[in-house]
Amino acid sequence: MVDDAEKLIARTPETFKEKQNIDARILHEVREIDLKQRRLRVKKTDTGQTTWEPFEQLLVSTGSISIRPDVPGIDAKGIYGVNTLQSGLNVRRVVDEQQPQKAVIIGGGYIGLEMAEALIMRKLEVSLVERSEQVMNTLDSDMGELVSEALMKVGVKLYRNESLTAFETDNGSVQAVVTDQRTLPTDLVILGMGVQPNTGLAQDAGIPLGVKGAIKVNDLMQTEIEGIWAAGDCAECYHLMRRQPFHIALGTVANKMGRVAGINIGGGYATFPGIVGTAVSKICDVEVARTGLQEKEVQDLGLQYVTGKIESSTRAGYYPDSGRIHVKLLAEKGTGRLLGGQIVGKEGAAKRIDVLATALHAELTLDAMINLDLSYAPPYSPVWDPIIIAARVAVKKL
Amino acid sequence: MVDDAEKLIARTPETFKEKQNIDARILHEVREIDLKQRRLRVKKTDTGQTTWEPFEQLLVSTGSISIRPDVPGIDAKGIYGVNTLQSGLNVRRVVDEQQPQKAVIIGGGYIGLEMAEALIMRKLEVSLVERSEQVMNTLDSDMGELVSEALMKVGVKLYRNESLTAFETDNGSVQAVVTDQRTLPTDLVILGMGVQPNTGLAQDAGIPLGVKGAIKVNDLMQTEIEGIWAAGDCAECYHLMRRQPFHIALGTVANKMGRVAGINIGGGYATFPGIVGTAVSKICDVEVARTGLQEKEVQDLGLQYVTGKIESSTRAGYYPDSGRIHVKLLAEKGTGRLLGGQIVGKEGAAKRIDVLATALHAELTLDAMINLDLSYAPPYSPVWDPIIIAARVAVKKL
Repeated sequence: MVDDAEKLIARTPETFKEKQNIDARILHEVREIDLKQRRLRVKKTDTGQTTWEPFEQLLVSTGSISIRPDVPGIDAKGIYGVNTLQSGLNVRRVVDEQQPQKAVIIGGGYIGLEMAEALIMRKLEVSLVERSEQVMNTLDSDMGELVSEALMKVGVKLYRNESLTAFETDNGSVQAVVTDQRTLPTDLVILGMGVQPNTGLAQDAGIPLGVKGAIKVNDLMQTEIEGIWAAGDCAECYHLMRRQPFHIALGTVANKMGRVAGINIGGGYATFPGIVGTAVSKICDVEVARTGLQEKEVQDLGLQYVTGKIESSTRAGYYPDSGRIHVKLLAEKGTGRLLGGQIVGKEGAAKRIDVLATALHAELTLDAMINLDLSYAPPYSPVWDPIIIAARVAVKKL
Repeated sequence: MVDDAEKLIARTPETFKEKQNIDARILHEVREIDLKQRRLRVKKTDTGQTTWEPFEQLLVSTGSISIRPDVPGIDAKGIYGVNTLQSGLNVRRVVDEQQPQKAVIIGGGYIGLEMAEALIMRKLEVSLVERSEQVMNTLDSDMGELVSEALMKVGVKLYRNESLTAFETDNGSVQAVVTDQRTLPTDLVILGMGVQPNTGLAQDAGIPLGVKGAIKVNDLMQTEIEGIWAAGDCAECYHLMRRQPFHIALGTVANKMGRVAGINIGGGYATFPGIVGTAVSKICDVEVARTGLQEKEVQDLGLQYVTGKIESSTRAGYYPDSGRIHVKLLAEKGTGRLLGGQIVGKEGAAKRIDVLATALHAELTLDAMINLDLSYAPPYSPVWDPIIIAARVAVKKL
């Protein structure tokens, strides 16, 4: 747990000014982008004063917003989306000050999992409602089941294949979550239903949008309007495995996009070729990771594929604190080209996904994977690395 | 610590028989390989009886033996090489039963480091003598220095740039280690001076040897004699980065070679393309990893190169238990082709070397490394993965 929220602020306006001579104006809300006259209408949120600010080059990096379902009671007090530092602080303050007993989390993605962990650690009674068969639906359902089991093991009450239909409220405060199967009384609701690009401002200005309403950009981070750039959660990125534009709201991708946009706006040259779909999370002592394509994506793309799924250990079996690890690989039938991978396991499991991510970038085949000179010593791995074992299982099915 | 040595036995002769119908004869020592008559002279070490056993196909997997320096006193009691389960048990028994106070380790490679850790944990006063400038000379000296510091921090007395010249003995037992600079009184000596291929038997039979006396094999694990195969520490393997045969004594490589030999002897087809030189170790809470070529190897090969060396953290900086990590990358000047990498850091540092090993197999350049979609979440990594930060530093020098 991080006690001091100040530690979570990457850079203050003062640091921006001192280190980079950047005039970072907080509490300034852009209300309108005027593409013709190349200016922004800006409202100072503390004074309410509105001014027009000219620009030559504009980077739109408006991020994303939590998806809020259009159901009765959604505007009640006690319902929190968590995708900004402030929204996280709000939840912490409520937990500290109002000592809620029960929480319901809607959605079993990364935010849902991480909030479940945080609230279980704060001794709340936590329920999680997930409309899919399993939590973490960026994993295949067999791997997602391992995550569902981990949630239940730490005490989360899990309701799968259930959809939110309404919130019951009393005097403007949430009292219960209503699903298509039951009513769950609660003091606190966390929305973990994902995010969407925050692109209302760009859309109003006529900046072309693409996938899922994200701003269309090329690999230089240029929008289709001269001198207008976009980066981060509000923008598209290219999915190297799907070979099409994609929207993903992850900090590491946003940072890469921001770097490329910054270099290009500054007169340099950089490109961001795209992502392979890597993500990691954890629920207490269970680590979860995925990269590339999952089965349903491979099927949607019309590819034939094989899988290799194994259970092994994170360290040599005899080594203290050796834990279980499950690895699943997907590869193209025939060619053996790696298509994706998923890992669920104990400490030391998740970061291994980076081997698979690197292999995807390099378009390695299972034959190559089998012979990778991955590191071995008893504290770190069994003598056959779990990834290689999985590749050996998959290659037999080619 | 592993309490029960039985756990370290991968397979007993009984398991071999039951699971794989393999007749594993322990306590049978091969004394001679007769290539003309295709037979082995075998001595049963319990009875002393000698017989001739015929073969059609022969796999030589005689492993390696600890290098024992040819200095006065080397045959004294109390001097141990550690490269078999039994030799490890011997050291443990001595520590348990004789309660030695002082130990001197000769050599600061993997075995030296691991024995230093083990003996420090057993409360011995441990000295380590290393003839090079730093321990772990498969690292560049700047990275090796970090490991030397880690050793000293846990209480190991470190004597660098010192060479063993003799052992002082009394009544056949070792009393002190003599170097070119001092005399270190001791109760126990561990030889960590590396291993050499155990190929006396093969050599006597006329099986051609290659690098460092290891048995010459091709990528099928065939020796130059029809029907004779070799695998493991006694055999050569191909170094993909050096592009020449090499000898490395590591369990993971030996296992890969054994698998390939077994498939081919059984009438199947498999190849072992080679290694990139990956290895990991640890000294208490400091993890050490390397892959590819180090600076002196790159220089020996006559390549021009750049380096990128950074210090970062294993997790997000604000995350509990975030530790320091040092990453150094070497890449070919001009092309940017990755040549090698070294990592020293706290928990979670070492296994990241696998990303670099995979990148070496795939011949990735620094430009590609910068854009790798490596996993990020605060418990696992800063938002810019340390490997990517190192690649960004190195790429600027191309």
